[in-house]
Amino acid sequence: MEIKIIDGGVTAAAGFLAWGCRAGIKEGKTNKDMAMIYSQQPAVVAGTFTLNMVKAAPVLWDKKIVEEQETAQAVVINSGIANACTGTPGYENTRRMAEETGSLLGISPEAVLVCSTGVIGKQLDMNIISKGIRAFEGSLEHSRKAGELAAEAILTTDTHKKEIAVSFELGGRTVTMGGMCKGSGMIHPNMGTMLGFITSDAAISKELLSKALHENVRDTFNMISVDGDTSTNDTLLILANGMAGNPRIEEENEDYGIFCDALNIINTFLARQIAGDGEGATRLLETTVINAPDKETAVLLSKSIITSSLTKAAVYGRDANWGRILCAMGYSGAQFDPYKVDITISSVNGTLKLVENGMAADYDEAFATEILSPEQVDIIADMKSGNAAATAWGCDLTYDYVKINADYRS
Amino acid sequence: MEIKIIDGGVTAAAGFLAWGCRAGIKEGKTNKDMAMIYSQQPAVVAGTFTLNMVKAAPVLWDKKIVEEQETAQAVVINSGIANACTGTPGYENTRRMAEETGSLLGISPEAVLVCSTGVIGKQLDMNIISKGIRAFEGSLEHSRKAGELAAEAILTTDTHKKEIAVSFELGGRTVTMGGMCKGSGMIHPNMGTMLGFITSDAAISKELLSKALHENVRDTFNMISVDGDTSTNDTLLILANGMAGNPRIEEENEDYGIFCDALNIINTFLARQIAGDGEGATRLLETTVINAPDKETAVLLSKSIITSSLTKAAVYGRDANWGRILCAMGYSGAQFDPYKVDITISSVNGTLKLVENGMAADYDEAFATEILSPEQVDIIADMKSGNAAATAWGCDLTYDYVKINADYRS
Repeated sequence: MEIKIIDGGVTAAAGFLAWGCRAGIKEGKTNKDMAMIYSQQPAVVAGTFTLNMVKAAPVLWDKKIVEEQETAQAVVINSGIANACTGTPGYENTRRMAEETGSLLGISPEAVLVCSTGVIGKQLDMNIISKGIRAFEGSLEHSRKAGELAAEAILTTDTHKKEIAVSFELGGRTVTMGGMCKGSGMIHPNMGTMLGFITSDAAISKELLSKALHENVRDTFNMISVDGDTSTNDTLLILANGMAGNPRIEEENEDYGIFCDALNIINTFLARQIAGDGEGATRLLETTVINAPDKETAVLLSKSIITSSLTKAAVYGRDANWGRILCAMGYSGAQFDPYKVDITISSVNGTLKLVENGMAADYDEAFATEILSPEQVDIIADMKSGNAAATAWGCDLTYDYVKINADYRS
Repeated sequence: MEIKIIDGGVTAAAGFLAWGCRAGIKEGKTNKDMAMIYSQQPAVVAGTFTLNMVKAAPVLWDKKIVEEQETAQAVVINSGIANACTGTPGYENTRRMAEETGSLLGISPEAVLVCSTGVIGKQLDMNIISKGIRAFEGSLEHSRKAGELAAEAILTTDTHKKEIAVSFELGGRTVTMGGMCKGSGMIHPNMGTMLGFITSDAAISKELLSKALHENVRDTFNMISVDGDTSTNDTLLILANGMAGNPRIEEENEDYGIFCDALNIINTFLARQIAGDGEGATRLLETTVINAPDKETAVLLSKSIITSSLTKAAVYGRDANWGRILCAMGYSGAQFDPYKVDITISSVNGTLKLVENGMAADYDEAFATEILSPEQVDIIADMKSGNAAATAWGCDLTYDYVKINADYRS
């Protein structure tokens, strides 16, 4: 069963329309700041959300819909203001966004999911938001361009839009799945990402859609970190409207496996895009822990490495300071024998073992620096204690991360 | 019972000699890199050590002494190389440092504690170390200057030495306690700090010395963070030689209480010094969580705030971005109602409430920036849910943190 990567995003699947526009929430005259996604038929919905105790108003709204309803039909998104720590007025504003979008599209407010991202603690200016929602009247399109505009409108400190689409066959019918996301800072997802949206025309039951999403998120979005800060707004939504006409997936059969594989391609791509576009980042850092005694240990170790400020700064400096890598593994909470560990770095420039059995291997520092120079750098830690593996994605820590976050609001 | 802060460090207490010199471990011709502390009488010893799975060779050596022996009499310390991830050769080098120091001082190797700090993964050059140890022959002094030289010799990326001494009365005798420490990066202690040394002439049982140290460390050194990286070498040692002649403390009486208060002054001062001298830091950040339901919750919340990269970068930018503070509390793992929380900032320039009941208070941004400008900035989070409190110390995240750690080895 071949899964093909195709040009596209959230409008790739049949029946999905979108658009992005400028309502005027963000400073500056040119930044788009509102997006809308609409499915011509009600779509089965699943979602994962931040575990932060402080949840933004739209997270509370969406959680309720995802937990209580089989389907939803639209998503309205604003960037610039997160609508978090905004109390009852904030929740009322989320409800109004759903009501006004529902009324525009001729669907009930409960069919409308709402997402916000940006500064925490500010209230939305509902005059601006309402104007923005009205601007979508008659502009939603199924086109490639529409997906791109939506993907641009949801960005904050991101340097580029993040979208992908795939197609595959189920029961003789071509099924398409597309996604977009945003995220650059406050990235340390715990059951979701900053904001991610996946659309598919597959026919699938709510139960299996939800299962596929939750299981896959553990290996993708929950394995990235930019700065260790878990956002108040993390939301990942998937809508499947069944318009591909495939035999509806209602059990964990071969079709379900293909669907999961496609979802994994989409989510891995989007998660890596967020990590590589981390605030101020110059390099994507991929860490794979292999031959660990169990999956949990592999996850703890790989996440600890990509989260370590010292390791991230060393990667920025192209310094093969492997002591910091082993140190980060040591405080991860995982149990292991340091004198069994091998550490190898790898990139398009070559592969080099830095550590053998927990101690310095005989390697050339200049070659190590060369390997650490390209846009993507891989660290492989071989635990030699079992068969479990895990991969995590992060980025280097740079002057620009500090600059962006010392100045973010001003 | 008055506890007086006096001028001094590890040589303040009776019978303690020290010195610091340059052996040649570090690059550059002027940097001191070895220190020695010696007690004229065997001193009751206690210590806390890193919980990192990757423990430096000297940590393993010292743990054994602290766990198995009542007393020790000397400490030899080198900076420049951490002797971590160095395997059997590294442990043998630690043993040789103890043997050569013991032979110089006429005591057994098992009476000599060893500490190393610096780059991970490099082996010590024992020719240089041996030469350094021999340089201490005849140079150890009980003088103020000797304590200062020792405090300088243990530094790595620190910008200044960190020492303090206090005196108090026990049973009519004047007792003195002094300490020094180092630490600037890879600071996120878990049962210890980078390196800390406390000397006292108090007479106290091993059991109570150890209890006092372990309990106090939870509120002091374990409450600081510079970068979230728990070192491989964290060690805090206390030596009490009894030469003050006070009635030996053998139960948790009033004298024990005074001893603990003195220890708390020393450890709080040293821990704050480390946080304020964090790599690249321009400001000490003190976070106090009050009216929490229990101590554990207060600890989780206060540590999460001072560890948040986004909060630290905002403090550097003097930006009262309180959403990041509340966000960091939200992902701390503590359970609480966000809409009960008040957040206040305070410094020599004034005090200002930013958040009331989880939402923006009506405050002046310009005044907030003024409050965030001095060398020390306090954040107070009022949970309004109980009586427990905790204080944690950290620092801002700056360009220079990245610079120092991108270039550290080169």
